[in-house]
Amino acid sequence: MKGYMGFRGVPGHEFVGRVVESDRRELIGERVVGEINCPCRGCVLCRAGLGKHCRSRSVLGIQGRNGAFAEYLTLPDVNLHRVPASVSDREAVFVEPLAAACQALEQSGVSGGDKVVVLGDGKLGLLIAMIFAVSGAAVAVVGTHEKKLAIAERAGITARTVAGAASCAEADIVVEATGSPTGLECALRMVRPGGTIVLKTTVAAPHTLDLSRLVVDEVSLIGSRCGSFDEALALLAENRLDVLPLISAEYPLERGREAFAKAGERDSLKVLLTVSG
Amino acid sequence: MKGYMGFRGVPGHEFVGRVVESDRRELIGERVVGEINCPCRGCVLCRAGLGKHCRSRSVLGIQGRNGAFAEYLTLPDVNLHRVPASVSDREAVFVEPLAAACQALEQSGVSGGDKVVVLGDGKLGLLIAMIFAVSGAAVAVVGTHEKKLAIAERAGITARTVAGAASCAEADIVVEATGSPTGLECALRMVRPGGTIVLKTTVAAPHTLDLSRLVVDEVSLIGSRCGSFDEALALLAENRLDVLPLISAEYPLERGREAFAKAGERDSLKVLLTVSG
Repeated sequence: MKGYMGFRGVPGHEFVGRVVESDRRELIGERVVGEINCPCRGCVLCRAGLGKHCRSRSVLGIQGRNGAFAEYLTLPDVNLHRVPASVSDREAVFVEPLAAACQALEQSGVSGGDKVVVLGDGKLGLLIAMIFAVSGAAVAVVGTHEKKLAIAERAGITARTVAGAASCAEADIVVEATGSPTGLECALRMVRPGGTIVLKTTVAAPHTLDLSRLVVDEVSLIGSRCGSFDEALALLAENRLDVLPLISAEYPLERGREAFAKAGERDSLKVLLTVSG
Repeated sequence: MKGYMGFRGVPGHEFVGRVVESDRRELIGERVVGEINCPCRGCVLCRAGLGKHCRSRSVLGIQGRNGAFAEYLTLPDVNLHRVPASVSDREAVFVEPLAAACQALEQSGVSGGDKVVVLGDGKLGLLIAMIFAVSGAAVAVVGTHEKKLAIAERAGITARTVAGAASCAEADIVVEATGSPTGLECALRMVRPGGTIVLKTTVAAPHTLDLSRLVVDEVSLIGSRCGSFDEALALLAENRLDVLPLISAEYPLERGREAFAKAGERDSLKVLLTVSG
């Protein structure tokens, strides 16, 4: 609802569903999740293996393609991934953001024992913190919501309020997932010289920033978006992390307006919409 | 003279000289260049091998330590590198900026055949373009000074004026060495999705920037400062590139004011100060 892409249409890009129609008949009836980027597969970027950056792509529920808050949606066959029986529907809806968290992990170049700070205690921030913890890094998540930070703590992750977090430049890696334009400045204060900031927040408006510290301290700032569904599915299938505490509520699609109101509450994390099928 | 560190004292951090006094007697009489960062060697950063980022460091001619525009200067023994006989004084004064150019190369992760754009046709921009060309990349330097761009062309490097440079997002790597606050926006327009921007410009004032493209296109922005003197000396000793065309003039130290005036002229690149010794 606060999207920055000027999208009009059916929103929703995190889903699990069952295939009812496909040219690949073996997919029919299968429970699947789906990659959200639909590239043209013909341009220079697509041919270079950079399809998710295709300039003519549509993106499920975000750009030029109706999304998942509906009884039915369409995606190219090739975007679909079968969900193993050991992964429940409630877990499978986390594959898309979990893949985005995996991408942050991969791009960060983290190695065991690295001090990692995740800024932001929203859904994405918590998933990223969990993924880094699984990788063996020493993770602290920094946020402003006590109840959300408590979820991180129950998962064995250090949690701190913004006020309580030291802003000394000591983190090897900072992942900025606050969704706020001021998050990057905070990240620049926390990262050590030679360290890495992974930037997840897309701030719509231009904002003012002093990047001289980035140069003098030789910090790397890495933009990060979508990631590998296969990795995310494997993590869930192998029970490497528990995403279920991130579900705040569940509504049938007919009560979608209530679901949006619930999702807007301060302590809400993921709110599910269900269609009985 | 336009420095942003509030430094007062003798400026100058690019030099070649002869050792007249040292506890390491084998150094006396040797022709040397010197690394400019003088770390404390005791703090957490120094112990982690990040001495050039030491918070209590002094920096020759830049921070807490008189520099090279003088008859004599002091540096710790450990900062000094002997200059091979095959490298002339006029070449050796380029070791410091050449090391900074090597650092950009190393941090960029360039691989053979990559399309590289260097923004800025000043001394550093030209050195960086030369180093990338040596590495086998397809380099174009983009600037605003015809005479400086002509030096790049004579070195076999593609040169373009800013007006003539396509701003389509096609470069694998963009090195931003304009010294201008608007250089980064230009770099963001030129780099391809998933590409890398190496940022050399330290802009004193905060400036306004839209970083959403960095995230959506998963661009890496890497701050880059000082580099390896050994690498730079080896490049000169092996005659891998010719830095001499970058020398615009030479003055004895007594005529330092004239030298500064000359250095401020539009077409000037490196201006040397000499002390007869």
